[in-house]
Amino acid sequence: MTGATLQAIRYQRGSLEIIDQLLLPHETLYIPISTLALGHDAIKTMKVRGAPAIAIVAALSLAVVLVDPSTVASGRLLTAQGAVVFIEESLEFLKTSRPTAVNLFDAAHKLAKGVREAGAIASAKGQDVVDKYLELAEKMLEDDVKDNMNIGRFGAEFILKVWKGGDDLRVITHCNTGSLATAGYGTALGIIRALAGQNKLTHAYCTETRPYNQGSRLTAYELVYERIPSTLITDSMASALLAQNPDKIAAIVVGADRVAANGDTANKIGTYQLAITARYHNIPFIVAAPSTSVDLNIGSGKEIHIEVRPAVEVTTLRGPVVEVESISKGSNDVVFKTHNGQDVTETIAVAARGIGVWNPSFDVTPAELISAVVTEKGVVLKEDGVQTFDMKTFLTSH
Amino acid sequence: MTGATLQAIRYQRGSLEIIDQLLLPHETLYIPISTLALGHDAIKTMKVRGAPAIAIVAALSLAVVLVDPSTVASGRLLTAQGAVVFIEESLEFLKTSRPTAVNLFDAAHKLAKGVREAGAIASAKGQDVVDKYLELAEKMLEDDVKDNMNIGRFGAEFILKVWKGGDDLRVITHCNTGSLATAGYGTALGIIRALAGQNKLTHAYCTETRPYNQGSRLTAYELVYERIPSTLITDSMASALLAQNPDKIAAIVVGADRVAANGDTANKIGTYQLAITARYHNIPFIVAAPSTSVDLNIGSGKEIHIEVRPAVEVTTLRGPVVEVESISKGSNDVVFKTHNGQDVTETIAVAARGIGVWNPSFDVTPAELISAVVTEKGVVLKEDGVQTFDMKTFLTSH
Repeated sequence: MTGATLQAIRYQRGSLEIIDQLLLPHETLYIPISTLALGHDAIKTMKVRGAPAIAIVAALSLAVVLVDPSTVASGRLLTAQGAVVFIEESLEFLKTSRPTAVNLFDAAHKLAKGVREAGAIASAKGQDVVDKYLELAEKMLEDDVKDNMNIGRFGAEFILKVWKGGDDLRVITHCNTGSLATAGYGTALGIIRALAGQNKLTHAYCTETRPYNQGSRLTAYELVYERIPSTLITDSMASALLAQNPDKIAAIVVGADRVAANGDTANKIGTYQLAITARYHNIPFIVAAPSTSVDLNIGSGKEIHIEVRPAVEVTTLRGPVVEVESISKGSNDVVFKTHNGQDVTETIAVAARGIGVWNPSFDVTPAELISAVVTEKGVVLKEDGVQTFDMKTFLTSH
Repeated sequence: MTGATLQAIRYQRGSLEIIDQLLLPHETLYIPISTLALGHDAIKTMKVRGAPAIAIVAALSLAVVLVDPSTVASGRLLTAQGAVVFIEESLEFLKTSRPTAVNLFDAAHKLAKGVREAGAIASAKGQDVVDKYLELAEKMLEDDVKDNMNIGRFGAEFILKVWKGGDDLRVITHCNTGSLATAGYGTALGIIRALAGQNKLTHAYCTETRPYNQGSRLTAYELVYERIPSTLITDSMASALLAQNPDKIAAIVVGADRVAANGDTANKIGTYQLAITARYHNIPFIVAAPSTSVDLNIGSGKEIHIEVRPAVEVTTLRGPVVEVESISKGSNDVVFKTHNGQDVTETIAVAARGIGVWNPSFDVTPAELISAVVTEKGVVLKEDGVQTFDMKTFLTSH
């Protein structure tokens, strides 16, 4: 029923390619990352996005460099100590690509620690240090995808368990939580992938996710790519959709930027409004997130600071210019304007000049409105009669 | 505190000018409507929009023509019968500008009936028929604005009566229900104007109202024009705004496309979702509409058919091209690209190709979620313990 899973990161030992997300959804181009400079540039210019994806692309770009004949020929990997120094220097350089990316720093820290330990063994040669690095970096990719597949599996299982409707099972999602935001497969979109893979999903709806349109650009792209039957709606249409399909929508599934110890969840702006409408329509509202997104140091959502972003993200939009004549047909099958064979990309204004704008990037959904938090370790539920989750007990016992 | 009220229709006997809404919000240009052909064209090409505004511009364009020296010189208005025929022919022509506009047909019907009656009086001269027409057409404009001002007055009064907060009173509105959608002043935006006029409003929030952005383009334009302190939000931010300002937002006010006998209200897509979040946050949700929008033949919202519009309205957006360099500052103060002194307008794609789209133009908000329906005759409330409005009893007793 569905196409191949979208791979935003293609890796095998000695070779790394990533989708250039700056060109999405209008063009799909894999670019090879064969040097540290290319890895650094891909992160810095946001050809790759999403915290886990950034960390893994950085780690793997060095993995590719370590097996490159020119690096080997340089002689820098001959001794264990030489290899450790080369790897540490390389990681320091890669860290400068996005100085605020916590996942990237965590990953670099773990990798450096691992190779230092390998290099500290008396009998260690340069190749032993390199092998250790390759093992650790490749495991990061593998584990992240595996965690997402487990989230997908647990989430699909939970939805099927609580679903009281018939064979027509549909799901709504928000923002992008798929292969383009993670190392692969995705979190909330991973649940949709898992349901589709089991032939249990008849339809997925994605919100466009204003103001940055991650839904209409990225999630829609992934759903079309994998041939999952799907429909784009504006954020404000979710309630009308639920009202018109009272026995078809099984759940709203979203990702999480951060989950507090009580289950309060910070996620892309608009998530909270979807949780309210899910409650009004009495359907499950599910948060999907790896356990690394749960911050037990944060007691509740009240402690989460919400970033407010620039007005122009709301008042202007960027995209390829469309031939107006091709619009009159009314379908989505538009024709792009080209210049010397290239798409013409422009930014247009979509709001009145001088209007003030409030543009918070996230909102906080209280645990009260969340039915389940799905992690790679399993599904966290609330105790009967309690309005919050006990994330600590779950995570320490799994 | 506030600027002059925006006049989208400027009329005095012998002269009619309208704002060209196709150029809004980026350019404010009044165009003279001095002939029937110009009136017809303004409606057909959507330089004027909104059902009441269309009917009034049609009626007034003929009023201007009737006092034009060249019409008088044509001799067609000399006899009562000649004047009636001229007016009827002109109205028939104007009706072809928007063959589906019910208000336009109703207005033309009433005007034609009035002049036929005036012409049927034995002593009637051509000028008597013309005078009757001018009286009726000018009264339409006057009555529509007066109705809206009454809606504004009743709505403001109601909000102030139920408001339990302090001096910081803020209101959220959706879509455009102002001077640009009516003959003047507006319905829901009329309530905001009335509150601002009484110095009771500290802030108005307008949603951008995807997919056609009437909020960010038109409502934001009116609020900036009148210097009402205001902020644009995306549709999905309303709930986060309510959560962060628990004691400041006094109400969400919206217009109505149609109100059923039980108070169920069809209005711009997204209205229903706002009503749900107003309920969750326990703030009044107010529908503002002239009594002509109440259709007693429709028992409930279930009988209202919802138009589904083309996908491209969601997947593409049109607007003036912005110099990208001017965006980097992050504010809304962008610089437009020009070509030969004119803005360059383009349509861009904002969604992945091939994605299916659901684009209903309206949704239905159940009476259960509506706190009050404000008409020009007064405020309609629900009886205690009843979930619906009795619009018939109210309208027949007022």
